Amino acid sequence: MLQSGPLPQTEHPLRGLFAPRSIAIVGASDRSAWARAALRNLDKVGFDGDIHLVNRRGGEVLGRTAHTSCAAIGAPVDVAMLVIPAVGLLDALDDLKQAGISNAVILASGFGEIGEEGARLEAAIRDRANAHGINIIGPNCLGLANFSDRSALWTGSLRTPVHPGKVAIVSQSGAVAIAIHRFASQQGVGHGYLVSTGNELNTGVCDAIDYLLEDPGVEVIALFVEAIRDPAAFAKVARRAMELGKHIVALKVGRSEATALAAQAHTGALVGDDKVFDAFCSQYGILRAGSIDELVHTADLLCKARVGAEGDVAIISISGGLSEISADLAHEAGLPLAHFAPETAARLKEFLPDYATVHCPLDLTGLAVTEPDMAAKAIEAIADDPSVGVVVYVFDVPMDADDASPLSLPMLRSVSEGVKRASAPVLVIANHAKGFTAETAAVVDELELPYLSGGLQFGLAALALARGQAGRVGALPEPAAQDSAKPLDGALPRTEYEAQTMLRGFDVPTIPAALAASRDEAVRMAAGIGGEVVLKISSPQIQHKTEVGGVAIGIAQDEVGDAFDAMMARVKAAKPDAVLDGVLISPMRKGGVELLVGITRDPQWGPTITVALGGVFVEIFKDLSLRLLPVSEAEVETMIGELRGAKLLNGYRGAPQADIPALARAICRIGEAALSLGDRIEALEVNPLVVDGDRIEALDALVIPAQTGETS
Amino acid sequence: MLQSGPLPQTEHPLRGLFAPRSIAIVGASDRSAWARAALRNLDKVGFDGDIHLVNRRGGEVLGRTAHTSCAAIGAPVDVAMLVIPAVGLLDALDDLKQAGISNAVILASGFGEIGEEGARLEAAIRDRANAHGINIIGPNCLGLANFSDRSALWTGSLRTPVHPGKVAIVSQSGAVAIAIHRFASQQGVGHGYLVSTGNELNTGVCDAIDYLLEDPGVEVIALFVEAIRDPAAFAKVARRAMELGKHIVALKVGRSEATALAAQAHTGALVGDDKVFDAFCSQYGILRAGSIDELVHTADLLCKARVGAEGDVAIISISGGLSEISADLAHEAGLPLAHFAPETAARLKEFLPDYATVHCPLDLTGLAVTEPDMAAKAIEAIADDPSVGVVVYVFDVPMDADDASPLSLPMLRSVSEGVKRASAPVLVIANHAKGFTAETAAVVDELELPYLSGGLQFGLAALALARGQAGRVGALPEPAAQDSAKPLDGALPRTEYEAQTMLRGFDVPTIPAALAASRDEAVRMAAGIGGEVVLKISSPQIQHKTEVGGVAIGIAQDEVGDAFDAMMARVKAAKPDAVLDGVLISPMRKGGVELLVGITRDPQWGPTITVALGGVFVEIFKDLSLRLLPVSEAEVETMIGELRGAKLLNGYRGAPQADIPALARAICRIGEAALSLGDRIEALEVNPLVVDGDRIEALDALVIPAQTGETS
Repeated sequence: MLQSGPLPQTEHPLRGLFAPRSIAIVGASDRSAWARAALRNLDKVGFDGDIHLVNRRGGEVLGRTAHTSCAAIGAPVDVAMLVIPAVGLLDALDDLKQAGISNAVILASGFGEIGEEGARLEAAIRDRANAHGINIIGPNCLGLANFSDRSALWTGSLRTPVHPGKVAIVSQSGAVAIAIHRFASQQGVGHGYLVSTGNELNTGVCDAIDYLLEDPGVEVIALFVEAIRDPAAFAKVARRAMELGKHIVALKVGRSEATALAAQAHTGALVGDDKVFDAFCSQYGILRAGSIDELVHTADLLCKARVGAEGDVAIISISGGLSEISADLAHEAGLPLAHFAPETAARLKEFLPDYATVHCPLDLTGLAVTEPDMAAKAIEAIADDPSVGVVVYVFDVPMDADDASPLSLPMLRSVSEGVKRASAPVLVIANHAKGFTAETAAVVDELELPYLSGGLQFGLAALALARGQAGRVGALPEPAAQDSAKPLDGALPRTEYEAQTMLRGFDVPTIPAALAASRDEAVRMAAGIGGEVVLKISSPQIQHKTEVGGVAIGIAQDEVGDAFDAMMARVKAAKPDAVLDGVLISPMRKGGVELLVGITRDPQWGPTITVALGGVFVEIFKDLSLRLLPVSEAEVETMIGELRGAKLLNGYRGAPQADIPALARAICRIGEAALSLGDRIEALEVNPLVVDGDRIEALDALVIPAQTGETS
Repeated sequence: MLQSGPLPQTEHPLRGLFAPRSIAIVGASDRSAWARAALRNLDKVGFDGDIHLVNRRGGEVLGRTAHTSCAAIGAPVDVAMLVIPAVGLLDALDDLKQAGISNAVILASGFGEIGEEGARLEAAIRDRANAHGINIIGPNCLGLANFSDRSALWTGSLRTPVHPGKVAIVSQSGAVAIAIHRFASQQGVGHGYLVSTGNELNTGVCDAIDYLLEDPGVEVIALFVEAIRDPAAFAKVARRAMELGKHIVALKVGRSEATALAAQAHTGALVGDDKVFDAFCSQYGILRAGSIDELVHTADLLCKARVGAEGDVAIISISGGLSEISADLAHEAGLPLAHFAPETAARLKEFLPDYATVHCPLDLTGLAVTEPDMAAKAIEAIADDPSVGVVVYVFDVPMDADDASPLSLPMLRSVSEGVKRASAPVLVIANHAKGFTAETAAVVDELELPYLSGGLQFGLAALALARGQAGRVGALPEPAAQDSAKPLDGALPRTEYEAQTMLRGFDVPTIPAALAASRDEAVRMAAGIGGEVVLKISSPQIQHKTEVGGVAIGIAQDEVGDAFDAMMARVKAAKPDAVLDGVLISPMRKGGVELLVGITRDPQWGPTITVALGGVFVEIFKDLSLRLLPVSEAEVETMIGELRGAKLLNGYRGAPQADIPALARAICRIGEAALSLGDRIEALEVNPLVVDGDRIEALDALVIPAQTGETS
C-alpha cells in the first residue's frame, strides 16, 4: 500500500532555537532586568511550553524555583537564554554541553563591537560553542521571537497585540529589529518571526533565513543587514527562496560609502561595493529597500498578491485628482499603465456615466458614491482585459467610525466582490500611508481585502520592484555553471598581445594583430594586413604605451619601416630597462561605438563584470551595468539594455544597427576568459571593445595580476 | 503724539469667505444631505457666529426657522452656501445681490467638467456673479473650512479633533483635499484651513493663497493643483510668499504627460510642460511634492524649523543601525553630512564611552539608555560646530504606553533641553513614519519638540527640498526686469546671417561671418578671414542647409572660388525657387565643447530657456537645464552647474577650463535677444554655442517665427 500523508521530514537543526518547546533562562535573578523582560515577553506571546530558571545559588527567583545549573534541570531543554555577564559565558557553555542543550541566545554586549579585547573574548566563546556543537544567536543582540508558534527569547519591547503573518523579520541590529517590528505592527503587516542576530558568533542571518524559508507559514523575509559575512551562504538561501517562490527584501546599509573597489583597473574605480551588492540582488531575485518604510511596505505587497512580470497595470479610483496622482506615481515607479481593449471599454461604458472618460487610470466618478457596485463591475471587467497584469483599486479602509464616510463599507464590500471574481491579481491601496487599527483589521479580514496600508507612493514603488523581481526568476545560472570555468594553468598574459591571444582562444573577436620583432618583419606584416595600420609597442613592463611614445596610428604602408625604428628608439630612450618584445601591428579602424568591458574581483563577492560605453559616457554619466560572474548571454543582453546609451548601438543617426546577440556573446566570452584565470588576476579589461554594425572587435586588452603581497 | 499699536489694515476682499461671522445656507431643507452635513461640520469646528437657513417655502427646517430668501434675512451675511441644484443658481445670485452678500460657495457639480452644455451654464453663472460682484468658490467643490477661526462651509467629512496649525490646505480636487486633511490629521500636522476650489468660477487657488499668505497664523500652503489657470497670478502669490518668508509646497499632477511643447525647434521636443512647471517652481521658491505623503511631510518640516541653505547636516541616533540607515537616506536625498571640528569631537568625547566612534551620523551607543542626558549634551555640542547648519535627532515619540520604552520620556526630555539650548535649528525625526495620537501630541506640546512624525525617509528628503528652496531666496529677478526687454520693431531675422547679426547687437559672441554674393566677394572675404573656411548657403527659404548641399567645411583659401560656384549651382538645382542671398563665409573651428541654447515659448508659461550639451548628451542623456525667462547671469551659472556634463567644461582630460562667467553672460544675452523679439517668435536656437577655454562663439543661429494661423 502506498503511504499517504506528508513524508516524514528531518527536523531542521535550528528548530530548537526558532520553535522551542522548553526554555532555560540562565542567570535569572530577581534583579535581572533581562530575565524579567524575557518572562514578560514569553507571557505576552502566550508561550505554553516549559520555562526553567537557572541561578547558581538556586532558591526562588521571580516567583519560580530556580535550578543551580542546566545540568540539574533533568528534563530536555531546546534552548538556553544566557542573561549573564560576558565573564561567565565559557562556564555556562560547558554546563549547556553537559545538559545536552544545543541552542543558546547570548544577549550580553562588550565583544567584537567594542574593540580588540572584546574580539578575543568573542573568539574564545565561538571556539567553545563550536567545540560543544552549540548554535548561538548573538552576542550583542536582543534575541528572537516566534509569534506563529508563540515563543519568545526576546528582551526588547514588543508591540501588542502582535499580528502573526507571512513576514519574517531578520535584522543584525536589535534597534532596527524593534523599529521594523513596531512599524510593521502599526501598518498591520503581520509577521511570524522577529530575529536579531547581533555579532553572529556562529549563527547568522543566512542560518536564520535557511530555517525560516522552510516554514510554510513564511512567504517573505524582511531583512536588515550591515554586512553579509558569508556571501556564498547568502547566495544559497537566495537561490532557495527563488526555488520556493518566496521572497527576500533587503535593507542593506552602505549605499553612501565612498569605498570603491580596491582595483587598479579603470572599472574598479567606478564601482563601489554597494553596486556589487545591487548586482547580486538583481541576479538573485532579492528586492532592495532603502528605508524601514520601504522594507515593510514591500514585504506587505509580496504577501498580498502574487504579481507577475507580465501585463500592464490598471488603476481604478473614485476621483479624478487621485487618478492623476496615481498615474504620476506609476510613471515615477516605471510601471506601464494599461490601455484598455475595445471590449473592456464597452463593458465599462455599460455602467459608467456618459461624462466619464474610459481610460487608465479609471475614474469611476462621483456616481460611485451612490452606486458602489460599480467597483466590483469595474474590477472584474478590467481584470479580464488581456493586456492587464494587475489591477490596483485606490481606496482607504477606515481606522474608526470618525474616519469612515457612509460610502466606505458598501464600497469595500463591492471591492471585495470584485477581488473574488477577478481573473487577475488585485491590490487595494490606500491613498496615502494609512494607520491600521483593530477596526481596520476587522474589515480587512472579514472582506479578505488585499489591502496595502502603505499608500500609493510606497505601494506602486513596491509593485514595480516585485514585477522586476518576478521577471528575474529563471535568469539565475545553474549552480554548476559557476564551477564550469576551470582555471587555466600556465603563465598569465603579460602584454596586450598575449591578452588578445588568450581572448581569441575563448572565441572573443579581436582585431588582427601581428607582433614584429624587427623592421623587416614589421614591413612584411603590415603588407599582409594592408592599408593604414596602427603600431603599438609590446613590452611586459609597459602598460601605458602612449606615455612612452609607444603608439602610432594611421601609418601608411610606406612609412611602416621608419615608424618601427623610430618607435623602438623612442621607447628605449624613455624606458631603458624595459624588455621590448617588438611592435604590435594592427589595421587602422575608424568609427563604431566604443564599449568597455571590465572584470574585477570584489574582495567579498568575487569576480564581477562591468559593461559600459567608453569615454565620457562612463566617466561622466556613470553609464554602466554590473553583474557577478558568470553571466549568461541573455543576462548580458539585459545589461546592454540597461545602458542609457544603448541607443547608440541601435542605429543612432543612421549608424548601422549593432548585432546585439553577437555583442553579448563576445562579452560573455570575455567573462569566461577572465574566470579561467581564477584568482590569479585582479582585473581583466577590454577597452575599447568596438562595435560597428556586425563587426565587433576587442581593440585593446589588459590583464592585471593579483597582488600576491610579495615583492617580486 | 505717535500712534501706538498695529496700523489699521484694509480688510482683504475675501475675508467674508475665509473667516465668515455670519453664514446663510441657501436651499436648506430637511431632506438636504448637504445642508445637514454643513450644519454638522459647523458644529464640529465650533462655529459661534450666526447661521441663517434659507428655503423658498420658509417654515421650520432642520430645527431652525428658515427665511424665504437671503434678502429676507435682514442682517448682514458674510457668505452664502448654495446647496441648490444648478438650475436655480442664477436666481439665487440675484437674491444674494439684493441682500448685499458678496461671497458664495457653490457645491453642485454638472458644469464644465461634464462637457459643453455644462460649460455654457457655468459661463452664464460666471457672468452673473461677476456682474453682481460676487466671489464664488466652486462649483463642483466641497467648500472650505477655517479651523483657526472655527468656521466651515464644508460638506465633506472632517477628521476630529482638528489640530489647527500653520499649514493651509488648498486643493482644486475635493477628494484630494479630504485625503490631505485626513493624512495631515493622522500625522499630527496641524492645519488652519482646508479649501477645495473646484471649477474656480471666478475665485481660484491663487485668490485663496493671496488671502491665506496674509494670515499671520499661516506659514505654509500645501497645494494640490491639476492646472494653474492663471500663471501670472500664481507668480505673484509665489513672489509674495518669498517676500513674507512663507512657503508653498505644490503637488501638481501631469508629470507623466507625454505632451511636449508644441515647438518646432529641437529643444521644444525635449521639454514637456511639466519641466516648465518644475523650472517655475525652482525659480519662484516653490517646493514640489510627488505624493500626498510628501506634500504633508514637507509642509510639516517647514513649520517645525527655519532651515537655511548653509552648513552641513548632523545626525544623532542611539543605534549604529539607525545611524547607518540615516546616512544612506541623507546621501540619497543629496544632503551633505557634517564633519565635526576637533573642538566638537573633544566635547563629545567627554561623555561618550571609549568605544564610541565620533563621526557623523553620531551613534550615542546603548549607554544613552542609562544616561539620557547625553542627548542634550550631544545636541548642544554639535549645534555649536561651525560647519553644522541643522541637527537631526532620530527618535520616536511614543503613541501610547505600550509603545513607550522606559527610555522614551527621559530621553525626550533631554532632547527637549538640547533643542532649547542649541545654537542651530534642530529637528527630531521618527525612525519611520509614525502614528500621532493624543498621547503623542501631549508629549510634543509639553516638550515643544520640533518633531517630524513622517520618519527619516520623508523627513530627510523634505529637509533637502527646504534647503534647496532656502538657497533660492533672492535669486528671483525683480518684477520690473521682466518688462525691461522691450520688443524690437522691424523685420525678424530670416537667415542665419541675420540671426547672428541680431545676436551680435546683444553682445552675444558669434563666429566672424561675411556674406558673399559673388565668387569674387567670396574669395576676397575668405582671404580677409584667413586659413581654412566654412561656406554655408544663405537663403530665407532654406533652413536645413546640409540637405541641399549648402554646407562646405574645411575649404582651403585657393579652393574658395570654385567651392562658391559649386555650392550656388548645387543649391539652385536642389531648390530652384529659393532666393539665394549668397554664401556665408566663416573661419573653420575645431575642438571645444558644443552647447545648445534654445528659447521656446510655452503656451501657458511664456518664454523659456534651455541650456544643454549638444549631440548625444541632450539627445540620449537628456542632460539639460530649463528656466523661465528672464534669467540672471548667476542663474545661468546655476543652470550650467546642473548639467551632469558640466565636467566637460571644467578642464576635462586636459582641455582648457571654460570661462564660465563669460559663458553665462553669453547665454543670458541670447535670452535677452529672444525676449526682444517678443511673441513674434516661436523659438530661437543657437546650436552649437562652442566653448573652447575662454573662446565662446555662437556657430549657428536660427529664429523660428510664431505661427500666425494665417497661410502666407
